[in-house]
Amino acid sequence: MPPEPRDPTYEARVRSSFERQKVMSTIGATLTGVEPGSIRISLPYREDLTQQHGYLHAGIVTTVMDSACGFAALSLMAPEAAVLAIELKANFIAPAAGESIVVTGTVLKSGRTITVCTAQAHAVSDGRQTLVATMLATMMAVTGRGITD
Amino acid sequence: MPPEPRDPTYEARVRSSFERQKVMSTIGATLTGVEPGSIRISLPYREDLTQQHGYLHAGIVTTVMDSACGFAALSLMAPEAAVLAIELKANFIAPAAGESIVVTGTVLKSGRTITVCTAQAHAVSDGRQTLVATMLATMMAVTGRGITD
Amino acid sequence: MPPEPRDPTYEARVRSSFERQKVMSTIGATLTGVEPGSIRISLPYREDLTQQHGYLHAGIVTTVMDSACGFAALSLMAPEAAVLAIELKANFIAPAAGESIVVTGTVLKSGRTITVCTAQAHAVSDGRQTLVATMLATMMAVTGRGITD
Amino acid sequence: MPPEPRDPTYEARVRSSFERQKVMSTIGATLTGVEPGSIRISLPYREDLTQQHGYLHAGIVTTVMDSACGFAALSLMAPEAAVLAIELKANFIAPAAGESIVVTGTVLKSGRTITVCTAQAHAVSDGRQTLVATMLATMMAVTGRGITD
Repeated sequence: MPPEPRDPTYEARVRSSFERQKVMSTIGATLTGVEPGSIRISLPYREDLTQQHGYLHAGIVTTVMDSACGFAALSLMAPEAAVLAIELKANFIAPAAGESIVVTGTVLKSGRTITVCTAQAHAVSDGRQTLVATMLATMMAVTGRGITD
Repeated sequence: MPPEPRDPTYEARVRSSFERQKVMSTIGATLTGVEPGSIRISLPYREDLTQQHGYLHAGIVTTVMDSACGFAALSLMAPEAAVLAIELKANFIAPAAGESIVVTGTVLKSGRTITVCTAQAHAVSDGRQTLVATMLATMMAVTGRGITD
Repeated sequence: MPPEPRDPTYEARVRSSFERQKVMSTIGATLTGVEPGSIRISLPYREDLTQQHGYLHAGIVTTVMDSACGFAALSLMAPEAAVLAIELKANFIAPAAGESIVVTGTVLKSGRTITVCTAQAHAVSDGRQTLVATMLATMMAVTGRGITD
Repeated sequence: MPPEPRDPTYEARVRSSFERQKVMSTIGATLTGVEPGSIRISLPYREDLTQQHGYLHAGIVTTVMDSACGFAALSLMAPEAAVLAIELKANFIAPAAGESIVVTGTVLKSGRTITVCTAQAHAVSDGRQTLVATMLATMMAVTGRGITD
C-alpha cells in the first residue's frame, strides 16, 4: 500500500524540481518513475563520469541515489516544504559497469521534519541487473527559509 | 608527524591516478595538495553542477570528498595495491555556496586491507571558509584483481 | 532463494559464537532465528537499558542490530574465517518502546573479504510491530589473526 | 574558542540528564567532562560487555559514543529542547581492549534543529591511548513532544 502524499500535486512538483536540478541533465540522468514515496532515475554509462578503473565514480552513483532519496522524500512532504539532504551513507557492492545504472529511492519513514530513505542502484548489462550500491539517507523538510520545491 | 608512505613514489602515483579519474576533469576539480595520508582537491562553483536551490549538489560535494579520501588512502598503500571505496557517510552542514569548495581528505588509520578516512569540505567566499560537509569513509586495498593505481 | 553457506556447520558455529558474546546475555538478548544470511535476535524491554526518556538507548538497539548483522555475515563465511565489524550506520525512526524489540539482520552481499548487511529493529507492543531503527553495516572476514568464530 | 551555550545552566542539565540515562550506570560509564559542545565519558573494561573475541562489543563502544555526542549536542541546545539521536555512523579501527575506553563527543555544528557531532573512542592501556573507534552522528532538538532534558 503506497503512502498517502500530503500534496496532491506531488508528481508535478517532483518533476519540476528535478528539472531545476541542473546537475541531473549535466550527467545525463533522467527521471523514469514518480510514485508517492518512490522515485526512479536512470543514468546511462558515460566515460567522462568514470573513476580511474573505468567504472562510474562512486560519487556519481551517490549523486543519483541522493537525488532519488531526496525526491522520494519530497513526494510525501507538505506543499510548503522544501527538501534538504542532512546526511547520506552508501555502500558500494560491485563495480558500476554496464550500459546504465537504474536507481530507486524509497521512503522508509516520512515524518513532519525528518524523512528516512533508502536507495538501491543496479547496473544494467545485456538486460540483466546487478546491485552495485545501496544507500541509507536522512532528508529534512524545511519551511520559511526562502527556498521552495 | 605525517605517516610513512609504503611506496616512495606515492606522489607521482596519486597524481597519475587522479589524471585517469575522468570525472574530476569533467566537473572541473583539480588536485591542489598531495602529502602522505592527506589530499587536497578544489572545485570551482559551476551552475551546471547545482541542485534545485542553486547550490552545488550534495552528491558532487560527496564525489570530491570521496576522491580526496580515496587518494589519501592510496598515498599510504603498498605499490601493488589499487584502492576501492567500500562505503562513505557524509553530513551536509551548510549550503555549498560561494566561489569554490576546498576539500581535504585525511587518513585516520591505514591498515593492510582497510583504510579509514575523513574529509572536510569548505566553501570559499570572499576569502572566508565555511565548513559545508564532512565525511567518514572506508577504503580498501585490493591486489590481484586486474586493476592498478 | 537463500544464499548457499560456505560452511555446512554454519548454524552450530553461529550459535556457539553467540553464546560467547557475553554482552548478549548481559542485556538479555536471545538468538531466535538462524538461516543462511539471516539472523533474528530478540531483546525484552528492560528499564536498566534506557536513555533519559525511558526508551531503550539507541546504542543498545544498535548493539543488537550489529550482532544480527555480524552473525548473518558469519553464517555465510568460510570455516576458517572470523567476523569483525568494520563500520555501521543506523537511523532511529521511532522510540524503542514496548515489550521487546525484534531485530533481523540480513546479508546484502557476501564477498570473500567484505560482507554488506542490513538490519531492521521492530518494537513489539500488544502484538503489533513498529519499525524503530534500521542499519547498513560492513563486516569483514579475517583469517590468520589468532581469532576464531 | 568554545561555542556559546544557549542555556547558562547547561552543565547541570547535562549532568542531570546523564543521571537519568540508566544504561550508563548499568554498563559502568561515568561522565568525566562537560564543556560547551564537548563531553567526555569513561567506561572501564568489563568482561560481561564483550563480544566473542573478548573485546568490548562494538555496540557498547557505540552506546558510549552516542551518549557523548547526544550530551555534547544538548549542552548547546535551548533550555526548552530535548535531544534525540536521528542517526549515527561509527568506524571500528582497532580492538577495544585495555583497562578502559575514554570517549570524547564534540559538536561540529549546532543548528536550531539539527546538530552534527563527532566522537572518538580511545582504549587506555598502561597509560597509553589508542584510537579504537570514531563516530559521525546527527542529533535533533525537539520541543513540544512531552519529553525534556
